Amino acid sequence: MRYALVLGGKRVRPFLTYAVGELCNAPSRALDHAAAAIECIHAYSLIHDDLPAMDDDDLRRGQPTCHRAFDEATAILAGDALQTLAFELLSQPGLDVDTGRQIAMLRVLGKASGSRGMCGGQALDLAATGKQLTEAELEQVHQLKTGALIIAAVQVGVLAGDDAAQAHADDFAEFATWLGLAFQVRDDIIDVTSSTETLGKTNGKDEAAAKSTYVQLLGLDGARVKLQQLHNKALQALHRIPYNTELLENFAEQLLNRDH
Amino acid sequence: MRYALVLGGKRVRPFLTYAVGELCNAPSRALDHAAAAIECIHAYSLIHDDLPAMDDDDLRRGQPTCHRAFDEATAILAGDALQTLAFELLSQPGLDVDTGRQIAMLRVLGKASGSRGMCGGQALDLAATGKQLTEAELEQVHQLKTGALIIAAVQVGVLAGDDAAQAHADDFAEFATWLGLAFQVRDDIIDVTSSTETLGKTNGKDEAAAKSTYVQLLGLDGARVKLQQLHNKALQALHRIPYNTELLENFAEQLLNRDH
Repeated sequence: MRYALVLGGKRVRPFLTYAVGELCNAPSRALDHAAAAIECIHAYSLIHDDLPAMDDDDLRRGQPTCHRAFDEATAILAGDALQTLAFELLSQPGLDVDTGRQIAMLRVLGKASGSRGMCGGQALDLAATGKQLTEAELEQVHQLKTGALIIAAVQVGVLAGDDAAQAHADDFAEFATWLGLAFQVRDDIIDVTSSTETLGKTNGKDEAAAKSTYVQLLGLDGARVKLQQLHNKALQALHRIPYNTELLENFAEQLLNRDH
Repeated sequence: MRYALVLGGKRVRPFLTYAVGELCNAPSRALDHAAAAIECIHAYSLIHDDLPAMDDDDLRRGQPTCHRAFDEATAILAGDALQTLAFELLSQPGLDVDTGRQIAMLRVLGKASGSRGMCGGQALDLAATGKQLTEAELEQVHQLKTGALIIAAVQVGVLAGDDAAQAHADDFAEFATWLGLAFQVRDDIIDVTSSTETLGKTNGKDEAAAKSTYVQLLGLDGARVKLQQLHNKALQALHRIPYNTELLENFAEQLLNRDH
């Protein structure tokens, strides 16, 4: 569990929880637990996605994947227990949040992670391997597989916030929706333009696995145009929120221009 | 998810949640969600335990295991999403329970399921394969692997109950502790005395997998004595509770004398 959780990674989701939560005047105890919970779900999903029966990956974040460093049974159990830990973290007492709101945070985490969220997206993704998806189908896969948890990271930050912040929940969620999709388009671009060394995971993996990608659907230039459009939509949603969202803007800028 | 969840089984854990919850005057909406959540955790654990990298079982409840009926990736994801569903069910609004108590129910479920509960027990169980455990070590494995969730099934029933019921939480939990351990001793006895047909899963499996069992540690007669001692302890805890616990007594009687 520790190996998979603390070995690095970009911490995109906890960053979003903290940044949004702080704008919404959320107490730090609630944000610590919420950000950690979201990252536990993310780390568990990576362990299970890397398994031989799933994407069968040997490298993650420049290191052997969990089932390579340990064994398959340990990787399955570490992932299972990291998922549990996420819900344990969010169900602790003394988070300085109204208990009704805390239950809503747990509900958001559950919905984003399960069969109508991340797990459902991974199932669709596996079913789609070797098939040509339309852009709409590809978008659906991504919205479930990665988008749902990115949106949840923002939603729990808002829910931990004050009453006034709740009025902006939809705009924050829309920001996260476009950011998450843009993040995925950037991922597809990186997969064909970066070396395995820079990437920390095997590159060209999507093509080898016959997976549909934005680059394959739209071409490299088309994918870059799409990325810019999504980035703009994310910024528009952000500009509707009457807080100082500069940090989130800069974060989007960095995230969507990264090369690994 | 549906295949693994609704294809039968003894429903020991949801029965305990309902039976205890009704004694404690718990509202039915809370019990429906709590019992379903506990059974989702149980079903997910069976799917993952049966995987080739874990116990590598072909039969469960007389039917092909999930990864045999579908495939390994589907089984991993179905288990993952069933775990999520458990926490989703318990984080629904309108369960007619005080929100603080509802969070406590989620916390109980998490603690029983994760690395300090069921998942930890399964990891110990795998690590112990081929080794000779002492009776104390074997008891620890069982307390985590199966005992923790059986205790949780009772605890959520009490938590969903009225204020007066909370005073009996420890006695109910102790009843569940001895019942869970006795259930496991009975399982070990059945593994050597019943046919595969009666059992619905492959018999003699423990011996073939070089797992420590009560029968192997204490002999068949010794295991039967142990079972009777644990059964008595369970009844003693129950008799300290000032409710009509006849249904629970009869249930323990049936459960501990079953032959499959």
